[in-house]
Amino acid sequence: MEIMQAEDTLVCTNRSPGLQHMSLWVLRDRNGKPQVAVDPVGVRPGNWVFTMSGSAARHATGNFEVLTDLTIGGIIDFWEAENDQPTGNTVATG
Amino acid sequence: MEIMQAEDTLVCTNRSPGLQHMSLWVLRDRNGKPQVAVDPVGVRPGNWVFTMSGSAARHATGNFEVLTDLTIGGIIDFWEAENDQPTGNTVATG
Amino acid sequence: MEIMQAEDTLVCTNRSPGLQHMSLWVLRDRNGKPQVAVDPVGVRPGNWVFTMSGSAARHATGNFEVLTDLTIGGIIDFWEAENDQPTGNTVATG
Amino acid sequence: MEIMQAEDTLVCTNRSPGLQHMSLWVLRDRNGKPQVAVDPVGVRPGNWVFTMSGSAARHATGNFEVLTDLTIGGIIDFWEAENDQPTGNTVATG
Amino acid sequence: MEIMQAEDTLVCTNRSPGLQHMSLWVLRDRNGKPQVAVDPVGVRPGNWVFTMSGSAARHATGNFEVLTDLTIGGIIDFWEAENDQPTGNTVATG
Repeated sequence: MEIMQAEDTLVCTNRSPGLQHMSLWVLRDRNGKPQVAVDPVGVRPGNWVFTMSGSAARHATGNFEVLTDLTIGGIIDFWEAENDQPTGNTVATG
Repeated sequence: MEIMQAEDTLVCTNRSPGLQHMSLWVLRDRNGKPQVAVDPVGVRPGNWVFTMSGSAARHATGNFEVLTDLTIGGIIDFWEAENDQPTGNTVATG
Repeated sequence: MEIMQAEDTLVCTNRSPGLQHMSLWVLRDRNGKPQVAVDPVGVRPGNWVFTMSGSAARHATGNFEVLTDLTIGGIIDFWEAENDQPTGNTVATG
Repeated sequence: MEIMQAEDTLVCTNRSPGLQHMSLWVLRDRNGKPQVAVDPVGVRPGNWVFTMSGSAARHATGNFEVLTDLTIGGIIDFWEAENDQPTGNTVATG
Repeated sequence: MEIMQAEDTLVCTNRSPGLQHMSLWVLRDRNGKPQVAVDPVGVRPGNWVFTMSGSAARHATGNFEVLTDLTIGGIIDFWEAENDQPTGNTVATG
């Protein structure tokens, strides 16, 4: 699963019926590359999240028939973008 | 799901029967790399779209038997290529 | 689906029985990276092709039991490697 | 399967119910890129592990219904990060 | 399918039971990046091989229940690492 930051919702009037009424978000990975994900969790702009890809993405929406290949799996409680590490935990990288 | 720009249709006289009569498009990602996708949505050259990959791509054509690994999922209403962001929305990337 | 150029067949005396008697080809992507694909279409060296990956690759051989993750989906009628674009078509990339 | 180093657990209060009670870890690949994986093996910070992705990741948790796309498959007994090779084995790379 | 070179076996005392008793190998891609694969073919250090990924990797072990995402599909008879091409064949890359 990848770590990304939620940016904003994505407006697509003409879209696949397979996405149903799921909310679409633009996420950014650590290199700034944009990705589009379905959000079943309820993120807000600026949140750090992790995402599931592949067939797990469909299951993770709670409805296997939602046709996504990327779904937000959870919001990370503490994440420091500057040094790309979790915060509030002791980090040991022997 | 990835964000790409539709360029042109792709002509392949000799192609897999598994693609049926679906229209094939050349898309470009943000680095200019070409990709080929099936278009069930009806795009036009220059449109910014998002794409589904993997097994979701087959479902997204509306017919699971269409043998694609990349399908256009929708046309993005507003997208600014220059700064790689949605437009017409307030963007917060705390 | 990706765009690649057919180079030559690949000889592997010791190979998985799951590939059956399918012909194997070395393809090159635009960066020159070699990939190995199954060819149900009948390509010739130098042809530009597009390829299907993942589970679509197995279906595209015409026999889901052929164990490939990359299959040639079709031969592109016109492709200009120099500028990485289709030829013989009007290209608009507004 | 990829080789990565375990860094720390990841705390996500708001996460997909599909992950059940599995422990989440931040792993680093050889370029330092963070990834999130489910850990059914019992790793410790600093361990070198290999990971399974895709649908194998779900099976590897021991419960196909756990919605992950990356699972730790095992702890490597000997691995030298400096020269990126196994240790304690004779290495021949003709 | 990707082309890689077999380096050495990988010793993991603590590993997923889903891998059963399959032999694990460290392979290197052309950039030297290590990957871990299951070997049903019987490779030797220094062999050039091609690999299957995704769900094809599980089938290619001869037992779909082996939880791998990368399996060696065959040993290449002739491969020149220097110029990254098959040898013993006439290569035409019009």
